[in-house]
Amino acid sequence: MAQIEVGVLGATGAVGQQFIALLAKHPWFKVTWLGASQRSEGKAYRDATAWRLPTPAPEDVSKLTVEQAAPGGAPKLVFSGLDSSVAGDIEAAFAGAGHFVISNSKNHRMDPDTQAAAPGWKGRIVTNPNCSVIALAMALAPLRQFGLKAVMVTTLQAISGAGYPGVPSWDILGNVIPFIDGEEDKFQPETQKILGQFKAGAIEPHPVVVSATATRVPVHNGHTVSMSAKLDQKVGPDALIEAFNNFRGRPQVLQLPSAPPQPVVYLQERNRPQPALDVNRDGGMTVSVGRLRPCPVLDYKFVALGHNTIRGAAGAAILNAELMHQEGIL
Amino acid sequence: MAQIEVGVLGATGAVGQQFIALLAKHPWFKVTWLGASQRSEGKAYRDATAWRLPTPAPEDVSKLTVEQAAPGGAPKLVFSGLDSSVAGDIEAAFAGAGHFVISNSKNHRMDPDTQAAAPGWKGRIVTNPNCSVIALAMALAPLRQFGLKAVMVTTLQAISGAGYPGVPSWDILGNVIPFIDGEEDKFQPETQKILGQFKAGAIEPHPVVVSATATRVPVHNGHTVSMSAKLDQKVGPDALIEAFNNFRGRPQVLQLPSAPPQPVVYLQERNRPQPALDVNRDGGMTVSVGRLRPCPVLDYKFVALGHNTIRGAAGAAILNAELMHQEGIL
Amino acid sequence: MAQIEVGVLGATGAVGQQFIALLAKHPWFKVTWLGASQRSEGKAYRDATAWRLPTPAPEDVSKLTVEQAAPGGAPKLVFSGLDSSVAGDIEAAFAGAGHFVISNSKNHRMDPDTQAAAPGWKGRIVTNPNCSVIALAMALAPLRQFGLKAVMVTTLQAISGAGYPGVPSWDILGNVIPFIDGEEDKFQPETQKILGQFKAGAIEPHPVVVSATATRVPVHNGHTVSMSAKLDQKVGPDALIEAFNNFRGRPQVLQLPSAPPQPVVYLQERNRPQPALDVNRDGGMTVSVGRLRPCPVLDYKFVALGHNTIRGAAGAAILNAELMHQEGIL
Amino acid sequence: MAQIEVGVLGATGAVGQQFIALLAKHPWFKVTWLGASQRSEGKAYRDATAWRLPTPAPEDVSKLTVEQAAPGGAPKLVFSGLDSSVAGDIEAAFAGAGHFVISNSKNHRMDPDTQAAAPGWKGRIVTNPNCSVIALAMALAPLRQFGLKAVMVTTLQAISGAGYPGVPSWDILGNVIPFIDGEEDKFQPETQKILGQFKAGAIEPHPVVVSATATRVPVHNGHTVSMSAKLDQKVGPDALIEAFNNFRGRPQVLQLPSAPPQPVVYLQERNRPQPALDVNRDGGMTVSVGRLRPCPVLDYKFVALGHNTIRGAAGAAILNAELMHQEGIL
Repeated sequence: MAQIEVGVLGATGAVGQQFIALLAKHPWFKVTWLGASQRSEGKAYRDATAWRLPTPAPEDVSKLTVEQAAPGGAPKLVFSGLDSSVAGDIEAAFAGAGHFVISNSKNHRMDPDTQAAAPGWKGRIVTNPNCSVIALAMALAPLRQFGLKAVMVTTLQAISGAGYPGVPSWDILGNVIPFIDGEEDKFQPETQKILGQFKAGAIEPHPVVVSATATRVPVHNGHTVSMSAKLDQKVGPDALIEAFNNFRGRPQVLQLPSAPPQPVVYLQERNRPQPALDVNRDGGMTVSVGRLRPCPVLDYKFVALGHNTIRGAAGAAILNAELMHQEGIL
Repeated sequence: MAQIEVGVLGATGAVGQQFIALLAKHPWFKVTWLGASQRSEGKAYRDATAWRLPTPAPEDVSKLTVEQAAPGGAPKLVFSGLDSSVAGDIEAAFAGAGHFVISNSKNHRMDPDTQAAAPGWKGRIVTNPNCSVIALAMALAPLRQFGLKAVMVTTLQAISGAGYPGVPSWDILGNVIPFIDGEEDKFQPETQKILGQFKAGAIEPHPVVVSATATRVPVHNGHTVSMSAKLDQKVGPDALIEAFNNFRGRPQVLQLPSAPPQPVVYLQERNRPQPALDVNRDGGMTVSVGRLRPCPVLDYKFVALGHNTIRGAAGAAILNAELMHQEGIL
Repeated sequence: MAQIEVGVLGATGAVGQQFIALLAKHPWFKVTWLGASQRSEGKAYRDATAWRLPTPAPEDVSKLTVEQAAPGGAPKLVFSGLDSSVAGDIEAAFAGAGHFVISNSKNHRMDPDTQAAAPGWKGRIVTNPNCSVIALAMALAPLRQFGLKAVMVTTLQAISGAGYPGVPSWDILGNVIPFIDGEEDKFQPETQKILGQFKAGAIEPHPVVVSATATRVPVHNGHTVSMSAKLDQKVGPDALIEAFNNFRGRPQVLQLPSAPPQPVVYLQERNRPQPALDVNRDGGMTVSVGRLRPCPVLDYKFVALGHNTIRGAAGAAILNAELMHQEGIL
Repeated sequence: MAQIEVGVLGATGAVGQQFIALLAKHPWFKVTWLGASQRSEGKAYRDATAWRLPTPAPEDVSKLTVEQAAPGGAPKLVFSGLDSSVAGDIEAAFAGAGHFVISNSKNHRMDPDTQAAAPGWKGRIVTNPNCSVIALAMALAPLRQFGLKAVMVTTLQAISGAGYPGVPSWDILGNVIPFIDGEEDKFQPETQKILGQFKAGAIEPHPVVVSATATRVPVHNGHTVSMSAKLDQKVGPDALIEAFNNFRGRPQVLQLPSAPPQPVVYLQERNRPQPALDVNRDGGMTVSVGRLRPCPVLDYKFVALGHNTIRGAAGAAILNAELMHQEGIL
């Protein structure tokens, strides 16, 4: 199978590096173009980048020259790890010029359609969810069948969710910060959209009520979500565990390269999931759930964990591109 | 004022050390007797103890000889930092022999009276609450006036709550453990007892429903509690903040040495309370509250923080002893 | 005794906050003036500052209005926690206008005199050493009598040494960074100047050879220094320990408020000094030394620890001002 | 190629788990037997073990029944992760009964031969070096050609080096412990043996003098070693870097499965090696070196990093077994 050439926007940043690392051995996509800010333009990627991931940067990408972050020489398919402060305009320019931009930025995330397209655009912008919402939404998706009404959430989020340089060590070493600017407001609308139904060309949001408290903890990768859900139906714990484990989506049906065999895995051990032990399950694409037990205030309590820079960012975007490719949208 | 001689049971352990550190400059109490396990018996305290607190051990206590953990030479007032595995029998022996045992152990915590006394005992055992329940209970106490119905809680607990050696660094470094053995079951009964009313010689529990998820985070001291409360009355946020800040108890009325001027302090900053910044407020005896905002599922969400080894252990026990002394119970 | 009014330059920064915290209960100095960058000018200090220290900001300072960082209304004595990028010009302007600037910045640290004074200045700039060199220099000072020839050093430095925001948590959480930009080059010249002799109006550097490796570790406060020294004289370990413990300086003779009773304390425990246990000894002004043992390559190995933002920054500057005041230089 | 059945002694412990994880996809060796303490005997491995590694336990091993730690049903080749307190007797019993015991324990590490064999033993005990010495020895091996005379070492060791439960989080969170019991004494003799020459049936130790200070830092995996070496020959830095990069051993010649292509890799970046970024290079079997620069006290300073539980424990043992197999010793 011929490889599909792809570009990475924001290639020197934290999410850009994660894209490059995940695509290093991808069976379909090959990184041949890198775009970044003016400071990096014209340099070899290895010289433009302070690589900060625990696997070495791929040799072939390291030799690429970083280009201006503008359409032109870029391949049709472009992954974007641009910061939201600049993503709006740049991604629109690429979409307007006919590129498919698979973006991790929040800018177009709440557009009514699944794919942002402005009048006159020849291309599209496709986004993935917020890095903490995804763990929540994936854990809740299997519970829709039981009449999901409301969920109360406290997150314990990893520092990589704030990008680089992100959270100063002065603030988080041996500490908890019970506040993440702008984060809590995303939980209800994004969850409702993700859990919603696609009807007549638009997404009809799921009516679940979400109340969230977002905290930052000294963990490198992996957002832990403590939650309690209210359900319409009376249902036993075994049914819920079965629902978690049996949940499958289109990526599983199509056996996409980045699709985990089981999107949600329920762990029986009483002290799991834990970021240090579970965050990299199936390449970081699985959401782990554990500690299901009755809640005397709502109905059921449990804990979920997702890899925020893979399942909640670069990996989700790549999975989106794989799905589009397999469905013939690209 | 003549100083009152006191003893410390479990003097070499983590809570015992905290008792000794807090009593070092106490205006009323002076540590003159130390009891510990057979391994330490007969040794000078400085030789028997691997001191693990950030302030040096007091010189005078360091020179005391550690005694057998049995009544006899001990003063009438004894603070106990014994592990719950041995506290039951030893504390009972002291109480039987006429001592007032101010204990941090859970063994007699849920006895129906405020002071445990078995038939024939000449003394008493007085206990303080669990180290995470206390932050919860103090933050909720001012809300009883608004018809407190239920509370949903996720704790982020410090490693010192597990004593020494306690949590292995292998397990907690850069990690979250979403489980603390036996912890969650204490939240409802202890909170109901603490918030209850003393009537006709017994405590009538408060009817609040408590649903808790307890997690361990890599923080040294300070349990953070994310919570949401359901109230009977419609009330604005300002009334709640006023209630937090105006809450006073008998220790404030009596101006006890360890009583913080304001037991609960509401912090206006949007990213507080934080263990690293707020845990030592007023010597660690104040519970800090912040982030009050409406909850779409229950009524109000907020975050509380308490020092688990001071407000939730040794400091609370000393405050109990001060109260008993001032009220003429000792 | 009438209090001496003092100003703090760079008042909103990390070192400025430390100045304000340490001066809160100072018997001689009272903060009445604050200077900071344009962004803070005209605001109340409490509104201009994100306070990041574990003790609350003093009430009276919180109410002060932050002024422009220029001489004019400032008191004669000014403490400077300005960043070295701007300290040069601003401090010179203050010194030129007749102020005594007690600075933590490196800009004038290696001037040949103990006090920087340019022609025409009516005031002076007085600096304290680098935050890691001070622990080294204080541990070595007592060894000069034994013919100190050379020292090999590896530091394990706290993140607060890099200021705020300083080291990203992404880089240091669960990690060691074996490099601190520009740090290692300071060790030999600064140590030689500090250990040197004041002769004929200038400092004659001590000839000690210093070879340093500087690393960053996930510790909040306290630079640990592993070192090995070469001495001219044959001397037993007891003589060295006695030398550490008996070392005294002019601050001890004058009993200055910030002077620790014993500037260097040798700890007998085999696993000390440790940042978590020893960094705050005597208000953070004492350097702790331990683990003295023979070195098969040079002569003696040992470990030293100093509080980098107190003994190595704000506390050292305040001690300098106290000394100047008591010696009649102010 | 038919797979060779192997056993793991101490299978439930930290090193035992690492053996099982590394052998999960080994091309030659297949784990078919597990031995552990009486507490685990007779249980399925999954029930006997609290798995603490970030990759899930292999399915097939999880189902094995744990046996008594005694020879009998065990395969000829046995990897031992037994604690040194019990390794002596148990490993001797296996060696006596004809097993090849590839051990990570220190008990037989300093025996004069490369393989411990007591009179009458039908088998052998083969050991690997201490987890911190290996990083030192591998970095120094390429420098023997320049007349290596002495080395001054400060280590910053990961908590996994102490096994499980190992270092209490109370002691190490946000802290440095400048002492590891018994560790420093191993550096000179083990390094001299590893760098020595095999002559006439025995190892002639290399004469290098080693002076070590061992510290513990809050890092999960990876011992960082700051060192300075004294060399007989005058040599430029480029020659040293070339020597590091060109160093090869018998495992590279034989292309053993666990042999890294380049045992020692010199990193050009000025702030490397770092545990968080470099410890897993080539499956954790490579020692990374960086920061080479002249030392004014000895000759050259540099920093090395090795994965303590892989290169310094289980991985080294497996490499030993691979070498023995390929050389026809098994």
